[in-house]
Amino acid sequence: MLSAPHLSVADFLHACKAITGEQYVLSAAEDKQVFESEWRGRMRGDALAVVLPSDTAQVAAIVKLCRKANIAIVPQGGNTGLVLGSIPTAPQTAIILSTRRLNRIRAVDADSNTMIAEAGCTLAAVQQAATDVDRLFPLSLASEGSCTIGGNLSTNAGGTAVLRYGNTRDLCLGLEVVTADGEVISQLHGLRKDNTGYDLKQWFIGAEGTLGIITAAVLKLHPQPRTRCTALLAVSSPENALQILRLAGTCFGPALTTFELISGVCTELVLQHIPGTRQVFPQQHPYQILLEVSDFHPASHTLALWENFEQELMQADLILDGALAGSVAQANDFWKLRESISEAQAKAGRNLKHDISVPVGRIPAFIAETGALLAAACPGAQVVCFGHMGDGNLHFNVNTQQVDRQVNPEALDDTAVSRLIHDQVHRFGGSFSAEHGVGAMKRDDMLRYKSETELSMMRAVKQALDPAGIMNPGKIL
Amino acid sequence: MLSAPHLSVADFLHACKAITGEQYVLSAAEDKQVFESEWRGRMRGDALAVVLPSDTAQVAAIVKLCRKANIAIVPQGGNTGLVLGSIPTAPQTAIILSTRRLNRIRAVDADSNTMIAEAGCTLAAVQQAATDVDRLFPLSLASEGSCTIGGNLSTNAGGTAVLRYGNTRDLCLGLEVVTADGEVISQLHGLRKDNTGYDLKQWFIGAEGTLGIITAAVLKLHPQPRTRCTALLAVSSPENALQILRLAGTCFGPALTTFELISGVCTELVLQHIPGTRQVFPQQHPYQILLEVSDFHPASHTLALWENFEQELMQADLILDGALAGSVAQANDFWKLRESISEAQAKAGRNLKHDISVPVGRIPAFIAETGALLAAACPGAQVVCFGHMGDGNLHFNVNTQQVDRQVNPEALDDTAVSRLIHDQVHRFGGSFSAEHGVGAMKRDDMLRYKSETELSMMRAVKQALDPAGIMNPGKIL
Repeated sequence: MLSAPHLSVADFLHACKAITGEQYVLSAAEDKQVFESEWRGRMRGDALAVVLPSDTAQVAAIVKLCRKANIAIVPQGGNTGLVLGSIPTAPQTAIILSTRRLNRIRAVDADSNTMIAEAGCTLAAVQQAATDVDRLFPLSLASEGSCTIGGNLSTNAGGTAVLRYGNTRDLCLGLEVVTADGEVISQLHGLRKDNTGYDLKQWFIGAEGTLGIITAAVLKLHPQPRTRCTALLAVSSPENALQILRLAGTCFGPALTTFELISGVCTELVLQHIPGTRQVFPQQHPYQILLEVSDFHPASHTLALWENFEQELMQADLILDGALAGSVAQANDFWKLRESISEAQAKAGRNLKHDISVPVGRIPAFIAETGALLAAACPGAQVVCFGHMGDGNLHFNVNTQQVDRQVNPEALDDTAVSRLIHDQVHRFGGSFSAEHGVGAMKRDDMLRYKSETELSMMRAVKQALDPAGIMNPGKIL
Repeated sequence: MLSAPHLSVADFLHACKAITGEQYVLSAAEDKQVFESEWRGRMRGDALAVVLPSDTAQVAAIVKLCRKANIAIVPQGGNTGLVLGSIPTAPQTAIILSTRRLNRIRAVDADSNTMIAEAGCTLAAVQQAATDVDRLFPLSLASEGSCTIGGNLSTNAGGTAVLRYGNTRDLCLGLEVVTADGEVISQLHGLRKDNTGYDLKQWFIGAEGTLGIITAAVLKLHPQPRTRCTALLAVSSPENALQILRLAGTCFGPALTTFELISGVCTELVLQHIPGTRQVFPQQHPYQILLEVSDFHPASHTLALWENFEQELMQADLILDGALAGSVAQANDFWKLRESISEAQAKAGRNLKHDISVPVGRIPAFIAETGALLAAACPGAQVVCFGHMGDGNLHFNVNTQQVDRQVNPEALDDTAVSRLIHDQVHRFGGSFSAEHGVGAMKRDDMLRYKSETELSMMRAVKQALDPAGIMNPGKIL
């Protein structure tokens, strides 16, 4: 089973336990299960053991041991990913290295607007630690209670405030990393400017654990906004949504924080499947926009901007209906509509996820053209389209359960549906993975849509930094 | 002379000319001189020729030719660098590849807040193209009339607005690059979110031309601020400056754009050497702060914030004097004081530049301790300290011309002075090159202050992406 025959499985596990303590090496099937399984239950990988080190030194020791035994390592944070990135999928013998116990907030510095958090801290814990010192850590996504900052960094997570604050990459000032050799690189000084050679952190952010293991990070904090305006706008088309996005950019400038598009299908799914949600408008509309403005300035100022925006909206006749949240509770209701879409979709049955981005101005054409192609090639397929329109990122999901293959024997199968959509994305100059990453699931897309030069450069760097190929094999490349 | 003996120098130059046209391959000494010389005249490198391709295809062809002939390539933009990064310094035979003719703005998209600019566009041209569509490209530095965006990207330039907008890396959404193999990677779609494998642009930004040649970039544009408040504040100490920085952060939040510290010595040098500058305050003060707030909102709002800030300043008794610019002309006067320091210093005689950063909160201690150490070890050395305090970056320069080595034979020599300062920076958890890069000048510092693991990872990636070692040899590593 092991390719280093001088170290038996028993010896290897014994050595792991000597590093972490007996109870932090799980090798019984029932203990491993939750770590080995994709959270939606779509797949289970096979790990020799799940190892839970408690600090960076233990991580380094485990990596050195694995290197010696030629055992692969699948780093895992909250295991909330959507592309099979955090469970074993390759034929090599592998352990799962869970960062769960690396969960300390090492330092919070409100003066410097920085925080040092260990990889296993949940995103919610990081947000809370920032709030505690009257600062904002702006990364926000549906899984924030479970996902970890190490996973967010390794996948360069996006979420709902990218428009204003950027992706996770933009929120990181430095990393502590255990390399594939088991060496520790520590760049945790939190400098805003440092041009001393190649910026190593950039290599590990978004690398999905294939080059090394992020164990801690210096995160950028932002001032806590004093005011939030949250609104739901009903519109007839993505074209109008695009015009509203432009108008909002002009009216609010950098204060425009969130601009989410929600198709009528999504709203219906949520109302049907999620208890406690309610229709905001008297009738169903083709699309809704969840728009949020957050401002450092007092509410009076933001409301004045808002009134101006509203007037311009009316004059341009861009909306069918609209509601500005009058209370935090109402704002939360609006957000619940948006945040429940994935769950509602899951309850409605299996769907094909497409986490795509295109240049913002091309979103209306993309939705129209792709919808028409799909309707022709796969009659009955239902498009469930929503997402972060402000930064060009749509979740262009498709439910094919109503496709009647007896009536339409030529209807595309699921793989071909995804292919059609990703080909469209490519034609529109977009990305087949805007924020979820590649994992094991989109490797074929890498081969199809990346140039040979891009792929060979990625392979060269992977080979240079992980020559033994033990870091999360079978992911990305 | 050439290590590929089958291609003579004459053949090589002939082949270059076939690619670019005769007049764009300069091989006469007098034609090459301006390209071969560091702009302050401190050094001249030796290039076989200066080649000026006009487009990306020509760059790629030149790189393929150099690879075949085993001739090194020193990419050069505006040649305004301060660390000998853009002239030949290594023993290999090299050409200078000037990007000067790659100077088209390919596209400006105000809707998407993006611009595609070729590497040889000056920073000023990029700024102007943004202004033309009522947008801001916020990168700003003293050499903006001459430096190029390709050079800014390759050195991850900083400047005076990093506090609000980040470094050049933060202003780039995608690159077009010619690799060391002469292949073209084009990632110019301007997506805000794209997690399809390793983010290749990050490898080339800040790599100082050692991994490939940036030929074009998608740049992020920002809304044009409607209001600017520019003030000069006189303070007694860096401690008070730090307290003011904190207060400004609280009062202005993200609108705080510039926070520059200027020591009294700098002001004196400027007033003495730069015609048209004048003393703002009736008397000289130990330090001045140039503070700028820029806001998307109307002036009335910003002025209200400013009044509040002023009141708090007074209550805390933090300033000795202060002036808020009453006109654009006055604001320009304040900026001229700041922007003329380097020139004044040059006129005052040779000085040792130290482009350092430390965590912001440690700046007062760094200045005090390092000044005391220097005074003891090198009596007569004059510290000329100024810079971007808001992001922790100081130009802690030293003039040693008044050191009387007959009276103080043990006084440190220039190399030892720089060593002392960089050792201090290291002790304070700082960077020996905050925004200027490494070039040929700070390679020894890399060896001294970077860990062996960091260096070996950088070398591994260099080897992986430029196995023949033809890209800007002798720089960084």
